Amino acid sequence: MHRDPDRLLPHDSARRSIARGLYEATAELPIISPHGHVEARALVENRAFTDPTALLITGDHYLTRLLHARGVSLEQLLLADDADKAARRRAWAALCENWHALAGTVVRYWLEEQLSGLFGVEQAPTAQHFDSLSEMLAEPEFRPQALLRRFGVAVLATTDDPADSLEHHRQLQHDGLRVIPTLRADAYMDVLRADWSARLERLAVAADEPTDSYAGLLSALRRRRSDFRAAGGTSTDTGVLEAWSEPLDAAEAERIHAAALRGDATESERDAYRANLLYRFAELSADDSMVMQLHPGVHRNTHAPTLARFGPDTGHDLPARTSFIEPLAPILRDFGTHPNLHLVLFTVDESAFSRELAPLAGFYPSVRVGAPWWFLDSPDAMMRARQAITDQIGFARTSGFVDDTRALCSIPTRHDTARRVDAAFLADQVAAGRIALDEAEQIAVELVTSIPRDAFGLG
Amino acid sequence: MHRDPDRLLPHDSARRSIARGLYEATAELPIISPHGHVEARALVENRAFTDPTALLITGDHYLTRLLHARGVSLEQLLLADDADKAARRRAWAALCENWHALAGTVVRYWLEEQLSGLFGVEQAPTAQHFDSLSEMLAEPEFRPQALLRRFGVAVLATTDDPADSLEHHRQLQHDGLRVIPTLRADAYMDVLRADWSARLERLAVAADEPTDSYAGLLSALRRRRSDFRAAGGTSTDTGVLEAWSEPLDAAEAERIHAAALRGDATESERDAYRANLLYRFAELSADDSMVMQLHPGVHRNTHAPTLARFGPDTGHDLPARTSFIEPLAPILRDFGTHPNLHLVLFTVDESAFSRELAPLAGFYPSVRVGAPWWFLDSPDAMMRARQAITDQIGFARTSGFVDDTRALCSIPTRHDTARRVDAAFLADQVAAGRIALDEAEQIAVELVTSIPRDAFGLG
Amino acid sequence: MHRDPDRLLPHDSARRSIARGLYEATAELPIISPHGHVEARALVENRAFTDPTALLITGDHYLTRLLHARGVSLEQLLLADDADKAARRRAWAALCENWHALAGTVVRYWLEEQLSGLFGVEQAPTAQHFDSLSEMLAEPEFRPQALLRRFGVAVLATTDDPADSLEHHRQLQHDGLRVIPTLRADAYMDVLRADWSARLERLAVAADEPTDSYAGLLSALRRRRSDFRAAGGTSTDTGVLEAWSEPLDAAEAERIHAAALRGDATESERDAYRANLLYRFAELSADDSMVMQLHPGVHRNTHAPTLARFGPDTGHDLPARTSFIEPLAPILRDFGTHPNLHLVLFTVDESAFSRELAPLAGFYPSVRVGAPWWFLDSPDAMMRARQAITDQIGFARTSGFVDDTRALCSIPTRHDTARRVDAAFLADQVAAGRIALDEAEQIAVELVTSIPRDAFGLG
Repeated sequence: MHRDPDRLLPHDSARRSIARGLYEATAELPIISPHGHVEARALVENRAFTDPTALLITGDHYLTRLLHARGVSLEQLLLADDADKAARRRAWAALCENWHALAGTVVRYWLEEQLSGLFGVEQAPTAQHFDSLSEMLAEPEFRPQALLRRFGVAVLATTDDPADSLEHHRQLQHDGLRVIPTLRADAYMDVLRADWSARLERLAVAADEPTDSYAGLLSALRRRRSDFRAAGGTSTDTGVLEAWSEPLDAAEAERIHAAALRGDATESERDAYRANLLYRFAELSADDSMVMQLHPGVHRNTHAPTLARFGPDTGHDLPARTSFIEPLAPILRDFGTHPNLHLVLFTVDESAFSRELAPLAGFYPSVRVGAPWWFLDSPDAMMRARQAITDQIGFARTSGFVDDTRALCSIPTRHDTARRVDAAFLADQVAAGRIALDEAEQIAVELVTSIPRDAFGLG
Repeated sequence: MHRDPDRLLPHDSARRSIARGLYEATAELPIISPHGHVEARALVENRAFTDPTALLITGDHYLTRLLHARGVSLEQLLLADDADKAARRRAWAALCENWHALAGTVVRYWLEEQLSGLFGVEQAPTAQHFDSLSEMLAEPEFRPQALLRRFGVAVLATTDDPADSLEHHRQLQHDGLRVIPTLRADAYMDVLRADWSARLERLAVAADEPTDSYAGLLSALRRRRSDFRAAGGTSTDTGVLEAWSEPLDAAEAERIHAAALRGDATESERDAYRANLLYRFAELSADDSMVMQLHPGVHRNTHAPTLARFGPDTGHDLPARTSFIEPLAPILRDFGTHPNLHLVLFTVDESAFSRELAPLAGFYPSVRVGAPWWFLDSPDAMMRARQAITDQIGFARTSGFVDDTRALCSIPTRHDTARRVDAAFLADQVAAGRIALDEAEQIAVELVTSIPRDAFGLG
Repeated sequence: MHRDPDRLLPHDSARRSIARGLYEATAELPIISPHGHVEARALVENRAFTDPTALLITGDHYLTRLLHARGVSLEQLLLADDADKAARRRAWAALCENWHALAGTVVRYWLEEQLSGLFGVEQAPTAQHFDSLSEMLAEPEFRPQALLRRFGVAVLATTDDPADSLEHHRQLQHDGLRVIPTLRADAYMDVLRADWSARLERLAVAADEPTDSYAGLLSALRRRRSDFRAAGGTSTDTGVLEAWSEPLDAAEAERIHAAALRGDATESERDAYRANLLYRFAELSADDSMVMQLHPGVHRNTHAPTLARFGPDTGHDLPARTSFIEPLAPILRDFGTHPNLHLVLFTVDESAFSRELAPLAGFYPSVRVGAPWWFLDSPDAMMRARQAITDQIGFARTSGFVDDTRALCSIPTRHDTARRVDAAFLADQVAAGRIALDEAEQIAVELVTSIPRDAFGLG
């Protein structure tokens, strides 16, 4: 292994020295993490990671899916919290055996960064590291809260069900960690989900509002949005396969809601109800100013046997061809120039950057282009996204980096990767005479300070 | 601000010196502008620009849309010719306030080029420049005709309704400016447009042919194509959302034409009529040899409230996913190898370059790949287009650069940008041992001389 | 002309020297060609090429289509084996006249490599070369088998009808050339093809199994797959416009088979039968472990007049927008994690690399990303493919290079091009601190040894 201090920066000496300066201006700045999947509960519990498998493998489906593609069974990798040590050791060994096959991937890049930066491991990991790393992880400075402080995380947003009690967020804030909730109501959009009505009931309790009507659901969501804001939340998130948005009149929405509660809703009613709710989420955001994140374009749980055995989020979600301009037309027509709407649009289909997202963000004051996401949050893909976007709209209409991770220790690594790529991109612009050096320095800093703060209403 | 003489050229010294030589071979060559939106009437009137707002802001929807996205209302920007000086000064101030936010965009790059090249302004513009630039603009050398001559524009094509009198073009040519018309008949393709029959009547007068039948419309268009050629025109242009082309038999086309005049046409009849006309335009071109430009893939006027208040071409046209191979199949089947058909195909969907346009132009002698257009006429996007196309078809099957602009002073800037990017691309080829230096020099010159002249029939 | 020894390698000296080392480690290694269209029969016949037109033009539709786009008629280019010398000389002259217009294309790059490497021609070819090259081609060392040996081709896979006798492959293997068959059963998938039942009959004879039923067809294919394996074959290939796969129950498949034999099948039955067969091919592969290559996304024979006059494979096949994730879902659900399924997925739609292929190969152990193909097997497109894929899945889940050519002498050139591009890509990774130099060297070698051997089951 090797840790070039100039890793990811341009190669030729002229650009490299520019890029290094830009990177150094941001390298030590606090981390703003406005979108991710670390759990507030786990942070409150603050339990030590038992071993490197727990820290780096079991919770990281970016990694487990790649090992699965190498022929390692998920059974070996997706270990329960109480899995025995031998199993955890085998999982670690499986990673070590496939280390070379991961060369070139961003997943290995992140792992190298973590192994080197946190543990001083500078060679390819071996089975022996299981024990030495386990020992280090037992130390207090490797507990989750200590790590978060060490990483300089100024704000960390989690992703939460509207029925969440938010008690863990309040506890963490009381302890001086700005961990804030993000309301994600996807599950309420699909009236054909097996757990739809059970979730409605849970939400009714959390919101203290009946949800057996459409109007009630909207009231409950409005109430919970307010609760989330009171707990420091500034944004919502929504994931859909396609971003169709189309308002229904209230009577029709009530009719479908009632049919769904009876178990009588059709697929087309489901689609209409969902498109209506997406529209209503924008309407609610225009009303209460919560930032509306939208992540369309993912086929969820595509491998039925894996879903049946291992559940969701186990590596077989896959990208879809994604459109924004047509599906979002009703929202943009009615709220696109509303001063309180703040839409951050993410894509895993790269072709949308220059064809849809930058063109939208170049007209609508409500639209920001979200950072390259999931399959695209790697050095080359991030660089391509900047190249696809910047000519059209610059930097100020983008969101700043979003780590989107469940893997706590990958947070600083991922942000560092983004800062290096942005430094490299800006250095290209400076070297090509397109941006002056001092303005590039200003932009490099803005990209990790004011731009994400503005995009996500973080003050 | 900063004007690196090597701006946009590669960074490392080996490629830079190659690129500089290639650029220098073309930098001073006359400008051939075969597609744009400057108005012939305005050139004849030759009125001075009152101030920098009139010169740089009000007519340039590339810029006004970006300022709108920054929260500046279009009311402040889309000023009527008789708007008062205070309003014009405020528009200029809005640009200055948002100058930094435009960093990295091609719009700001073009503005810097113009401010520096025309006015010697080398810093970020300020409110004070409104007066100093207004003074300069009062000088005779800043009148439109003088600018056109100063820019070395050898030929400038405008975009004109088939009913245009062409008197302004004749006047300009009489005065020694080769300004030629381009016939654009989009409005006649959509029989459901509110103004369709009124336009037919106007065309009937211009062509001295009745247009109350489909046959009459074709005759009138044929006549006007002939008139346009007599006025120096060499090409037509067509913009459609999707490029479906399918001939109707004459009786069916007459039936729809009649139904449309009665106000009885359906949407599917409109689509069939439009696809037929697109096919007929190709047939007419194969007959009279006028170059057929085609610009599919734009959703027009997507924001209804802005359209209602400010009209079309106000920044909310947006790209669509674009196909060519299937929609154009009937045209290509019947005329694709016709020696007189000359099709120039443009896209704002980058994925079409390597998937559709280069493959088509690599077989059909009638097809040329049009320059990257609109959202894509920026340095990075132009470079990506060359990279996507050249391996497959080289340079000779492309169109040469097209500025496509309404903003008179951006013409030389945009051509200079393209020349720099092409020099950079060719320098990469030379450095990689793929093209010899002398042949690269020849190609650099051809790209701004024989290639656009051939592509657009400019002799 | 010019043959920079560092052609296609990065320009700046730091990366260039890394890349040169990586390239040198692979430059002389044997060629593994697991997918191509050289004919075994022609290799057995081993006749001398009469002249450079026969060697370089008539069989290479990559080249003839570009010359056609330049206005050379296919009649002049697609010469029969018995065309007279004057005609062959004219075809050569047409190439020479259009030499400059081909600058920048990979086709000219390959020609330069061949002219220089095989014949020592270092300038642009001229009409005079026709005679000098013809003389050289009469020498024994320019016979097909001698060339294959000189090129260091360790294994060459051809593409063959399931009814092929395989005698030529056996003969060649007996003579010490590892030329192996690939079973391609596309023609049996389309029950509406005019020659469908005639082909079934031919297959029945070859397999010694009746094919007048669906069950019989499957048995015959199973038998022939076994025969192909016995003749050294390790893989099958399938080309479809869209990759829909959906099993039918046997009775329904029998019903359509019978209807098709009667000439009664409908288009939707054709589609259902084809989707079923694609699914069954995967099932067969999971059973017998033959690698399943899939090449979807090509509109075949798009120009009807050219097809009528010159037949298929004459340059007017064109790419389609291509999807994999949804169409292949049934196959992946049932066999995606089967240890014996080996799917190599190719695309001519670049957008699929990061959106579909890498995500699939990053989860399914059965999926490999095929090398950039056809319109995309050029230096820039190959580099873009690595950039789109590697961050996600590295190198081990790709197929290694595939030359896919009918043009014998282009085989070493094409492999050399791929080796140079991979060296350039790896050098970028090393320079950016993402892969250590020694591991990059290991990968460079694996990409032309173990990776294609594993991907295609070549042992």
